[in-house]
Amino acid sequence: VERLSLWRDGPARSAILTYVDRVTTSGSATFVPPAARIAVFDNDGTLWCERPSSPQAFFLLERLHVQAASDPDLAAKPIVRALLKGDLHAAMAEGLGPFADVLLRTHAGLTVDEFVAATTAWFDRAVHPRFDVPYGSLVYGPMLELMDLLRAASFRVFIVTGGGVEFVRAVSDELYGVSPDDVIGTSVELKAERRDGRLVLVRQAALHGSPNEGEPKPINIQSHIGLRPIFAAGNSAGDREMLEYASTGPLPSLALVIDHDDEAREYAYRGASFTDPHAEPITDTAARLGWTAVSMRRDWARVFGEDVAG
Amino acid sequence: VERLSLWRDGPARSAILTYVDRVTTSGSATFVPPAARIAVFDNDGTLWCERPSSPQAFFLLERLHVQAASDPDLAAKPIVRALLKGDLHAAMAEGLGPFADVLLRTHAGLTVDEFVAATTAWFDRAVHPRFDVPYGSLVYGPMLELMDLLRAASFRVFIVTGGGVEFVRAVSDELYGVSPDDVIGTSVELKAERRDGRLVLVRQAALHGSPNEGEPKPINIQSHIGLRPIFAAGNSAGDREMLEYASTGPLPSLALVIDHDDEAREYAYRGASFTDPHAEPITDTAARLGWTAVSMRRDWARVFGEDVAG
Repeated sequence: VERLSLWRDGPARSAILTYVDRVTTSGSATFVPPAARIAVFDNDGTLWCERPSSPQAFFLLERLHVQAASDPDLAAKPIVRALLKGDLHAAMAEGLGPFADVLLRTHAGLTVDEFVAATTAWFDRAVHPRFDVPYGSLVYGPMLELMDLLRAASFRVFIVTGGGVEFVRAVSDELYGVSPDDVIGTSVELKAERRDGRLVLVRQAALHGSPNEGEPKPINIQSHIGLRPIFAAGNSAGDREMLEYASTGPLPSLALVIDHDDEAREYAYRGASFTDPHAEPITDTAARLGWTAVSMRRDWARVFGEDVAG
Repeated sequence: VERLSLWRDGPARSAILTYVDRVTTSGSATFVPPAARIAVFDNDGTLWCERPSSPQAFFLLERLHVQAASDPDLAAKPIVRALLKGDLHAAMAEGLGPFADVLLRTHAGLTVDEFVAATTAWFDRAVHPRFDVPYGSLVYGPMLELMDLLRAASFRVFIVTGGGVEFVRAVSDELYGVSPDDVIGTSVELKAERRDGRLVLVRQAALHGSPNEGEPKPINIQSHIGLRPIFAAGNSAGDREMLEYASTGPLPSLALVIDHDDEAREYAYRGASFTDPHAEPITDTAARLGWTAVSMRRDWARVFGEDVAG
C-alpha cells in the first residue's frame, strides 16, 4: 500500500515521510523511543471542515432555534438574533467566549450521557449547507491517512481542540479512530447529583477554565498527557503555542500548518485565533519558524471522501 | 498461571473473578463491550502504602528541610514546624489544602521536566522509615495482580489519585504499567514561558481547581476519560463519589474498598477524606451499599513484594 496516497508529491508529503522514517529508524541518532511518540492534532479546520462555521456552531444553532421559539427574552439577545438570522460570522466575531456562553446555556442541565446522545443524534441528521452531506463526511481524507501513518509508526494520536470536548468525543472514535480519552478540548463545569440512588454528572452553564485555544493548549496537553508532543498539526493562530511546544523540545519534531487555499474544493481563508483575533497569521508564523506548510490546493489529491463533490 | 495467586480464597477474590467472567463472557446478558471496560484505582492506600504518611509527603518534607535551612520565616510557620519535627499527622490534620499549599511552594518555579527529574531522583534514594526499602517497593502485590487481570480482560486501567498528578506520573509506568496519560490527579497551575526560543511549562504556587478528592473524582474522570467506569477501587471517604459513580451506571459493575486491618504486615487505620474529615468511614459506606470489602489481613497472602519483610 502506498503511504499517503491522497497526498501529492511535494515538500509537505516529503517532510512527513522523511520525519517518520527519521524517528523510527533504530540505531539512528534521530530515533525516538515509541513511548515518546506523541502526536497532537487540532480539530476544526485541521481534521474537519470549519466553514462556513464549525459543526458545533450548527449544532448550537439548531438547539437555539428550538429554545428561542418558546423564549422571547432569549430570542431578543443580539448574539442570539445574529445566530437565528444565520449570520454566524457576526455572532462569532465577538470571539469564542460569548459564543461558548450561548452554547453552554443551550445544554446546561443535561447529564453528560444526555449530551452525548443529543450530539450523536445531530450528527446523524444534520447536513452541511454547501456540500449537502453529513458533517461527518467532511473530514479531510489526507489527514486520516496521516493519522494512520503515525499510528502505524507507533505514535499515539491525540486531538487537541478548541471545541467542546464532549461534542468531539461523541464522534472521535467513529470519525478518526481516536478514543474519547485521547481528546482534549474545552470543558464545561460539571456537578455530581444523586438521582434515584444513581450518581450522574450534570452540565453547568459555565466553562471549566479557559477555552482550549492558544496558551491553554500546551498546558492542557501537559495536564492530560504529561509528555511533550513531538508532532503537531494545526491551522490557526490558536494553535501557535501548541505547535511551538511540540517543535521546541529536545527530540526531533515536526510541526504542520494546514493552509486553506482551496476555494474550489473547500474554502480559502486564514485561520484566526478565537481568543486573540489580532494574532499573527499562523502561515506567517510557520514561515518564520520553519514549520511545514500544507497547501490544500497543491498537496492534497483529494480533500474529502469519494461521497463529497469537489 | 493461577489467577490472583496473591489473594486468598474468600469472598473478595471470588467477587472479582466472578465479575470479570460475567462481563467478558460473549453472549451473556452481563457482557460488556471492551470499549466500555474502564477501571479506576485510587493510589494512596489503594495501590501503595500511605502510612505513616504518603510518599508525596516525605518527598515534600525532604525539600522543605533544604528550603527551611536557608529561610527562617518559612521555618517559623506552624505547619512547617510540625513537618520539620516529623509530626506529619499534625501537619496533615488541617487537610489536603494547607498541606498542598506548602508542597506547591516548595516546587513552584520548576519546569515540568525539572519536577519529574526531582521526583524520580527522590524515588531512587528515599527509603521508608519502617520497612527500610524504597517507596516503590511498597506497592501492594495483590493489586498489581488485579490490574494485570483486568488488562488481560481488555479493561483499560486508570489511576485516579488525590496526590499530585505529575508526582504519580513520574513513576506510574515503572510501578504499575500505567502510562502517564492514564493518571488523573491533583494538578497545579502551569504557565507557558519562552526561554531561549523554547516553550517551557512552569509550575505555579497554586492548585488548578480543587484537590482530586471526593466529588471532583468522578468529575475529573469524566473530564479526562469521557466514559463512566464499571470497576473502581479505593480505601477512603475521598473515594466515595468515585465508587458511587462506577457502581451506579447501567452496566454491571464492581466497587472494591481496601480495609487496612493488618497492623502486623502493614497498618491498621480507617482511610479518611482529606477534604471532609467528618465523612462516613468508607467501610461503613461499603457495607451499606453492598460494595466488596477487601481485608488486607484475611484476603491477601502477601502485601508487598518478596523484598519487604512482613
